[in-house]
Amino acid sequence: MEHDSAKKPLREAGSSTERVYAALTKQIAAELRAGDQIPTTRSLVSRFNVSPITVQRALARLAQEGLIATRPGHGAFVAERRERSAGADFGWQAVVLGSSTPALEEFHDVFTLPRPDLIPLGVGYLDTGAQPSAALASAVSRAARRPGAWDRVPAEGIDALRAWFARQVGDARVNDILIVPGGQSALSTIFRALATPGAPVLVESPAHLGTLAVLRAAGLRPIPVPCDMDGVRPDLLEAAFKTSGARVFACQPTYANPTGATLPNDRRRAVLEIARRVGAFIVEDDAARDLAIDGPPPPPLAADDDGHVVYVRSLTKAAAPGLRIAGVCARGPVGSRLRAVQVLTDPFVSGPMQEAALELVSSPAWARHLKVLRRALQRRRDAAVEAVKAHLPRARLEVVPKGGVVLWVELPEGVDDVTFARAAMDRGVHVNPGRAWFPAEPAGAFFRLSYAGAGATAIETGVTRLAGALDAALATRDPSRWSPGHHMRGARRRGDVE
Amino acid sequence: MEHDSAKKPLREAGSSTERVYAALTKQIAAELRAGDQIPTTRSLVSRFNVSPITVQRALARLAQEGLIATRPGHGAFVAERRERSAGADFGWQAVVLGSSTPALEEFHDVFTLPRPDLIPLGVGYLDTGAQPSAALASAVSRAARRPGAWDRVPAEGIDALRAWFARQVGDARVNDILIVPGGQSALSTIFRALATPGAPVLVESPAHLGTLAVLRAAGLRPIPVPCDMDGVRPDLLEAAFKTSGARVFACQPTYANPTGATLPNDRRRAVLEIARRVGAFIVEDDAARDLAIDGPPPPPLAADDDGHVVYVRSLTKAAAPGLRIAGVCARGPVGSRLRAVQVLTDPFVSGPMQEAALELVSSPAWARHLKVLRRALQRRRDAAVEAVKAHLPRARLEVVPKGGVVLWVELPEGVDDVTFARAAMDRGVHVNPGRAWFPAEPAGAFFRLSYAGAGATAIETGVTRLAGALDAALATRDPSRWSPGHHMRGARRRGDVE
Repeated sequence: MEHDSAKKPLREAGSSTERVYAALTKQIAAELRAGDQIPTTRSLVSRFNVSPITVQRALARLAQEGLIATRPGHGAFVAERRERSAGADFGWQAVVLGSSTPALEEFHDVFTLPRPDLIPLGVGYLDTGAQPSAALASAVSRAARRPGAWDRVPAEGIDALRAWFARQVGDARVNDILIVPGGQSALSTIFRALATPGAPVLVESPAHLGTLAVLRAAGLRPIPVPCDMDGVRPDLLEAAFKTSGARVFACQPTYANPTGATLPNDRRRAVLEIARRVGAFIVEDDAARDLAIDGPPPPPLAADDDGHVVYVRSLTKAAAPGLRIAGVCARGPVGSRLRAVQVLTDPFVSGPMQEAALELVSSPAWARHLKVLRRALQRRRDAAVEAVKAHLPRARLEVVPKGGVVLWVELPEGVDDVTFARAAMDRGVHVNPGRAWFPAEPAGAFFRLSYAGAGATAIETGVTRLAGALDAALATRDPSRWSPGHHMRGARRRGDVE
Repeated sequence: MEHDSAKKPLREAGSSTERVYAALTKQIAAELRAGDQIPTTRSLVSRFNVSPITVQRALARLAQEGLIATRPGHGAFVAERRERSAGADFGWQAVVLGSSTPALEEFHDVFTLPRPDLIPLGVGYLDTGAQPSAALASAVSRAARRPGAWDRVPAEGIDALRAWFARQVGDARVNDILIVPGGQSALSTIFRALATPGAPVLVESPAHLGTLAVLRAAGLRPIPVPCDMDGVRPDLLEAAFKTSGARVFACQPTYANPTGATLPNDRRRAVLEIARRVGAFIVEDDAARDLAIDGPPPPPLAADDDGHVVYVRSLTKAAAPGLRIAGVCARGPVGSRLRAVQVLTDPFVSGPMQEAALELVSSPAWARHLKVLRRALQRRRDAAVEAVKAHLPRARLEVVPKGGVVLWVELPEGVDDVTFARAAMDRGVHVNPGRAWFPAEPAGAFFRLSYAGAGATAIETGVTRLAGALDAALATRDPSRWSPGHHMRGARRRGDVE
C-alpha cells in the first residue's frame, strides 16, 4: 500500500486495446465501406495476438464512436454514420416523464468521474494508492473459488459478516443486521421504508448530499435543523420534531460530511433522549468511523439504542469504492420493514463480495491498513488545514475535523460559491460549491475540500491555486448583491428552526 | 460444468468452523461464566490451527445464538443470556411505520432461501452445478488484480460492457446503456423514474412478481392486461391505455415468467405500434433471453425501437445468482432520467464485477456454457412437462414454454393454490402458489413449477409427489366455495380489461 502519492497509476489494459483500435480505424478509413463486415473476434484475436476481451474493448470503442454497428449473430459492420437522434422525436418522452427533481442533477454531477486533468479535491473516495487493493484482490479470488460461491445467499446477508457488523455496534445481534451494497443503497431503502411521500424528515443543516437527494427523489420533505461546530443543536432538534411533526431525524454524528463536526457525548445522550421522548427514529449514517485521525471516535448512538436508531456502517469509504458493502443495524419491527423494501431493489449482495469483505476485515491486514490510512489522512488533513490558513486567510474554517476526509470552508462575504468553484476549475482544481449540501437557504457561501483522493503535496498545490480562484471570484463579486451568508448566520444565531 | 445433478455440493468451509464452534460451546458450558472473556482470535487461530476467518465464523455463530457478546476493542465475553426483546417496547415503531404493503411480504418470501430438505421446484435460479462457476472465478480473480480495479468506475458502467449490451439489442449505442446490479434493481429504478406515486402502470396478467412488488411499494397502480397462450392481447392493451390513462406498459415478451408465453412477431409489431400511437413507454424485461430451448427467440422489441422501449437484460439468470449484473437500454431523454434515479440507490456497480461479466460473455466459454445449459434446460423442461401430464392429468398446462425455466399449471376447479402448495411442502416439494402473480383477482388457481434449480430426476420425483398433494387438496376442497378461476376465465373471454 502506497499512500500520499499525487500520481495515479495508469490502467495498463489500454495499450493493446489501443493498438487494435488504431489498426481497425485505419482499415475502416482506408479499405472498407458502409455495410462491409468487420473481421470476426476470433480472427482479430489471432491477427493481433491479444485476448478476446481486448478485441471486445476495441470494438466497443469503435461502436461508441459510431464507426461500426453490430447485428447479433451476424457480427460487426461498418456503420452508415446516420444520426438517429437527429431524426427521432423524443418530445413525447418529456410529456410522460414530467418535471424532474433538481437534487437529482446535482447528486449525479457529484457521482460523475472527476476530470483526470484536475487536482481532485472534490471526491469523497480514497485514491488508488490508499486502497488495500492487494488484500481485496486475494480475498475475492479465494471467495470466488469456493464451492457454491456464486449461489444465492440469504437476502439479509451472510451470517459471519452480519456478526462482524453487529460487533461493531456493540451489543447488537446478528439478526439486527442487514447487508446492503453500500451506504447510499442503505439510505435509499431506509428513507423509503420509514416515511411515505410528502412526510417531513429532519436533517442536519448542512446535510449529507446523498441523503438530501434520496429524500427529494422519494417525495419527502427535508426539514433543516441547524448545526454548530459540535454538530446538531439538541434544543432546536426537539423544537423541530414538535413543529414539523416529523418522526425521523437523519444525521452523521461522527465526522459529519460536509462540516467535519463530531457530536460530543452529552449531545449524543440528549439526541437519544429526545428520540425516545418523541417516539422517533434516528438514522445514524456512520460512514466515516474508520477514518478516525485524532484518537478513537465516541461510540455510535446505536451502541446505546433500544430501537430508535437505524444505523448505517459502510466499508466503502475506508477500503475502496469498488467494495460496495454496508451493514444496516435496526432493532425491532423496523428491521423487517427495511428487509422487505431492500429486497425489492437488491434482492441480495453477491456472495463473493460479502465473503471478500469478511475476509478483509477479519484479517490482520485490515488493522494494518487502518493504521497506515490514519497516518496518511493525518498528513493530508494537516496539509490542507495549513494551506487553507496560509493561502486563503480571508476564508473561514470553523471545524478542524478529527476524522473523515472533508474540510468545510466559508468564503468571504459576497463571494459566490459556484463562481469560485468554476474559477478553481479554470486553475486545474476540483472543489465542490457548498450550496447543494443545504436543505433550505444556504447559511453562507461555502466550499467543500476533500483530502481523500490526493496526497499532501497535491493538496498544497491545489490550495495555492485556490487563492488565485478566490481573487478572481472576489473581483467579480457584486457588492450590491444580497448576501445569503450574512443573513442566514444571523437567523441561525437567533435560534430559529430554519 | 456439471448439469442435471439433483445433488448440491456442500459448502466445505463449514467443517473447521464447526470444530471451533463445538469446542468453544463445550468450553463455555463447562468452564466459563457470564462475563468471562473468550480467548482472543489470535490465540484461537493458533490453538485450532485454522484461519482468522474460520474463528470469526465460529464466533459469529456463538454471537448469533446469544452465547457470547462482544465489546469493540475489548474482545468477546460469555453473554448474560438476557432477552432484550422481552424488555424493549417497540409499539411506537408500529405507529411511525404505519401500514405495510402486502406484496412486500410475498416477494420477500420468494427471496427467502429454500429449505434444503425440499425438492426445489419453486426457485428461479440455476443450481450450483449449472453455473459457469470456474469461468466466473477466473474472470473475477483477474479483474480484481488489475491496477485501479477497486477504483470508482463511471456511474453508467464500463464502456466495453455497455457496448456488449448495446450489441445484444441490435443498433443501440453505448450511450443508450446503463449497467445496474441485476434485473430487479433495474425494475426498481425504471418504474420509480417513469411514473409518480398514484399513477397507473399496465402489466400483463399474470405478471412478473418482482414487477408487481416494485409497483406496489412505489405506490403505483398495476392495471392488468389479460394474456393468452401467445402473451398479451394487443386489442386489450390499446383499450387499457385508453381507459386507464397509463403511459407505461410492463411486459416480458419472451419466455414470460410465470406463463412461459412468447409474443409472436405480429403481436410484437402491434404492441410497438400502439405504444407509438399512444405516446407510451414499454418496459421490456428480457430476463430469460439466454435461456432459449427450442431455437432462437424473436428479436426483442427494443431492436426496432425509436425511444418507446426501456429494455432490461440481465446476466444473472443464465450465469449465476452471484453475478449481479444487468444492462438497461433506453433511448432519448428517459436515459438521463434513469441514470439520475439509479445513482441515488446504487451509485455504480463494482468494477471487478463488471470486468468479470465482460470477460465471461466475451470468452468462448460463454457460448459453450449456453450450449450446455440449453441441453440441460431441455431435458429438465421435457421431464417436467411429461411428469405433469403423466401424474397430474387433472391439471392443465396451456403453454409448453420454448425457453425460460417455469411451467404455469392450472389446478382443477375448486382446488386452492395455497392449500396445494402446503400439501406439496408436507411431501418434501417446494412449488409456488400462483395467486401472488396476479395484479388483481386471480384468473384461476395456478401453481408455478420451476425447473431451474433441480435436475430431471429430482423433477420427476417431485412431480410424482405433487400428485399426492393434489389428492390431498382435492379431498379438502369445499364444493360450495366460490371458484375464482371459473368466474375470471369467463370475464376474460368477454374481452374486458380486468
